[in-house]
Amino acid sequence: MMQPIDLRIDIEAIMADIERLAAYSETPPPGVTRLVYGEADVRARAYLRARCLATGLTLREDGLGNLFARWPGSEPELPAVAAGSHLDAPPQSGRFAGVVGVVGALEALRALRQAGFQPRHSLELLLFASEAPTRFGLGCLAGRALVGALTPEELHALHDSAGRSLDDWRTFAGLHDPLEQVALAQGHYAAFVELYIEQGPLLATDGEALGVVRAMAATATLHIQLNGVSGHAGATLMLERRDALLAGAEIALAVEAAALATSRPHTVATTGMFSIEPGLANMIPDRVQMVIDVRDIAAEPRDQVLQALELTVESICGRRHVDYRLRLLNADPPVTCDPAVVETLVRVCEDLGLSRQFMVSRTYHNSLFMARICPTAMIFIPCRGGVVQHPDEYAAPDHILQGVAVLAHTLARLSG
Amino acid sequence: MMQPIDLRIDIEAIMADIERLAAYSETPPPGVTRLVYGEADVRARAYLRARCLATGLTLREDGLGNLFARWPGSEPELPAVAAGSHLDAPPQSGRFAGVVGVVGALEALRALRQAGFQPRHSLELLLFASEAPTRFGLGCLAGRALVGALTPEELHALHDSAGRSLDDWRTFAGLHDPLEQVALAQGHYAAFVELYIEQGPLLATDGEALGVVRAMAATATLHIQLNGVSGHAGATLMLERRDALLAGAEIALAVEAAALATSRPHTVATTGMFSIEPGLANMIPDRVQMVIDVRDIAAEPRDQVLQALELTVESICGRRHVDYRLRLLNADPPVTCDPAVVETLVRVCEDLGLSRQFMVSRTYHNSLFMARICPTAMIFIPCRGGVVQHPDEYAAPDHILQGVAVLAHTLARLSG
Repeated sequence: MMQPIDLRIDIEAIMADIERLAAYSETPPPGVTRLVYGEADVRARAYLRARCLATGLTLREDGLGNLFARWPGSEPELPAVAAGSHLDAPPQSGRFAGVVGVVGALEALRALRQAGFQPRHSLELLLFASEAPTRFGLGCLAGRALVGALTPEELHALHDSAGRSLDDWRTFAGLHDPLEQVALAQGHYAAFVELYIEQGPLLATDGEALGVVRAMAATATLHIQLNGVSGHAGATLMLERRDALLAGAEIALAVEAAALATSRPHTVATTGMFSIEPGLANMIPDRVQMVIDVRDIAAEPRDQVLQALELTVESICGRRHVDYRLRLLNADPPVTCDPAVVETLVRVCEDLGLSRQFMVSRTYHNSLFMARICPTAMIFIPCRGGVVQHPDEYAAPDHILQGVAVLAHTLARLSG
Repeated sequence: MMQPIDLRIDIEAIMADIERLAAYSETPPPGVTRLVYGEADVRARAYLRARCLATGLTLREDGLGNLFARWPGSEPELPAVAAGSHLDAPPQSGRFAGVVGVVGALEALRALRQAGFQPRHSLELLLFASEAPTRFGLGCLAGRALVGALTPEELHALHDSAGRSLDDWRTFAGLHDPLEQVALAQGHYAAFVELYIEQGPLLATDGEALGVVRAMAATATLHIQLNGVSGHAGATLMLERRDALLAGAEIALAVEAAALATSRPHTVATTGMFSIEPGLANMIPDRVQMVIDVRDIAAEPRDQVLQALELTVESICGRRHVDYRLRLLNADPPVTCDPAVVETLVRVCEDLGLSRQFMVSRTYHNSLFMARICPTAMIFIPCRGGVVQHPDEYAAPDHILQGVAVLAHTLARLSG
C-alpha cells in the first residue's frame, strides 16, 4: 500500500465555485441554463480562467473554446496528465453536472501544489468547450473535435436551429483561432480522467460508494421513415390498408424485443422520436418518422441488434406493403476504459479507505472520445435520487470531497 | 313497372351551377375552399338563394343557416318530401362533394315543375348549413342541430380554433334567428334523400353503376392518454422501463386486431392520431395521446370492439406499468336506411334502365342524423379514382345526370 500524500482538499472553495458558476445562467435560479457560447457561458469561462490564473496555471485556449490550464512537470516534454469536464448546461438543468469535474480538477491541482508535490509529467485542467447537444444538435462537440472525429469542415458547417453558424457563435464568444488547430495528436496525453456526477441512481442506492467507470456505452442511432397509403378511416376497409403507424408500432416493439433478446443488461434500445402524418382522427396515417437509439458498451452486440432490426423492418414493411428507408445517423464506438488508469483509481480508493464500485457510463461524456487518443477513465460520485438535467440535481459535499480526493491522488500517481 | 314521367334534366344547367359555385372559394382554382360562414360560403349561399327564387321556390332560412326552398304540394299540411346536401368545402377540396346534391335537387324540382308534375306532399330543397368539421371541429353541425342532437346551448358554446364563437360567425354571415328554433320535429319530413358523390372508388371500379345506400356507418371515437415514466435512453435499463410509446404501440396493434377479430368487413378501426412526449432521441417517451376511430353500420359489433379494447388497454398498461385514461369522445348511432325509400330508389333505377348497386356509406353525411327524424336514404354517383377532398375530385356529367334523374323520379313518387 502506497502512502498517500497529505492533501488538504478545500471543499468550501469547491462549493463556493459551484455556487458562483450556478449564477452564470440564462434563466433565474434554481435552474441553470448555460448554452455554449452564450453570454452566461462566456462569463462562466472568464470566471474559470481567472481562477486558473490565481492558482498559477498557464492558459491556452483553442478556436473552439477548449481551455487548457497547465502546471508544467519536471519533464515538460512528456505528454501531460489531464483532468477536466465541461461548463455548458442544457436549459433548466442543475449546477453539478460537468461543473464538479472542472472545479474538482482545479482544486486537485491547487491542493497538490500546496502540498509541495512536483509532477514529472505536466498536469493539465482541460475545460471542454461543450458537452450538451443543445445549441448545435450534436453532443460532445469538444471531445469529437479534439480527437478529429469532427473535422474543421464539419464544424464550420454546424448551425443552430435559428440558422446561426458555429463560427458566428464562437466569434461572439471571442474565439478567433483557426478550427484547423483544435485536433490533438494521438498520445497527446499520458492519461485523462473525468470526475462526474452519476447520471443515474445506482451509487446513491447502493451504499453511496464512488464509481470507477470501466466501460462507456455508445450509441448507434437509426432513423426510419415509413411511407404507407393514407385513406379515409371509414371508407378504407381493414384488409385494403397500408397503415404506416401500424408498421411503426410493430417496429417500436421489435426494437424492445431485439434489445431483450441479447440477454445483456448493457444493451438498451429506445424509440425516442415517433411522429405520424397526417395525424387526423379520421385518416389512416401514411407516414411515420422514428428515431431509434441503441446503446451498448461493446460494439458487436449493439451492431447485431441493428442488423436484426433491419431484417425485422424489412419483414414488417413487406407484410404491410409499407415502403421504408433506413438511415444510420451515427454509430460511435463504445469504450473500455484504460486498465492501468482504472487500476490506479481502484488503488487510490483502497488507500484512502473509500468504498467504490465498478460502473458503466451509459450517457455521453467527452471522455468517450478522449479514449480514442489517450488512456482514459472516469470517476462517478453519487447523485441524489438519480435526478439529473433538472434544478433538483444534487451531489453532497462529502461525496464531492471524496471524488476530488481520489482525482487528486490519481493525478499525482499518474504524473509522478 | 311504373311509366316514368317524361323529365328533361338540364345537365348543362347543373354543370354551370357547379362551375359558378366552384368560383366562390377562399383559395384560387383548381382547389375549392369554402368554410361555413366565410365570405365564399356567404356568396355561394346568395347564389343558391337567387337560383331557388328564379325556380319559383319559397325560402326559409333558420338561424344556423339551413335553407329550406319549398314547392308547396296540393296537400300542404302533409309533411314535405325533401332532398339536399351542403355547400361548405374543407380547404383545397373539390367542386362536387355536397354541391352535386344541392344543385341536383334544385334541377330535380325545376324539371318536375317544367314537366307539369303536381306534388301532393310539398317538395323541399334542404341546404344544410355545414357538413365539414373544418371550422368548429365538429362534422355535420347542421344535421346534428336539425335533429336536436346538438342543443342550442352546445351550439352557443362552439368556437373556432382562434376562439371566435359560432354566434359571432353566423352574425357575420347575416344569420340572426334564434338557434332555439333550428331543431325540427320528429316526422317533420315524409322522406329525405341526399344525392352525393361516392367518397371512395367502388362504383367507379365496379362498372360505374349508381349506388343505393342501405346503411350508414357511424363512429365511436376514443381518446387514450398514457402516462409512463421518462428516463435517459442510455441510463435506464430495459427491465426498469415504463415506456408509454411501447404501450401505445401495442394498443394501436390491438385496435387493428379487434376490428379484424369481428370478421365483419364493415367494422373498421383506425388510430389516426398518435403523439408522444418528450419526443427526444435520447429520452424514453413518458406520454402518449392517441385517438381511435371505430366504425360500423351496426352499433353492437362496434361497441363490442370498444369493450374488447378497454380490456386490452387495461391489460397492456397493467403489464407495462403505464397509467392510462380512456375518454369516449362520441358514439353516434349507425343507421339502416328506410326500406321504403330504398325500395323506391331501386325501382326508379330499374324503370329508368340504370344499373345500381347497394352501398354502405362509410363517411359522415348529414343524412346520418336526418334518419333520426324521418325516413332517409342516399344515392351515390361514381367518383373518379375514389379521389375526394382534393382538387382532382371528379364526377362525370353522365353520372350526375343519372343521379339527378333518379332523385327527381324518386321525389315524384314519394310526394305524388
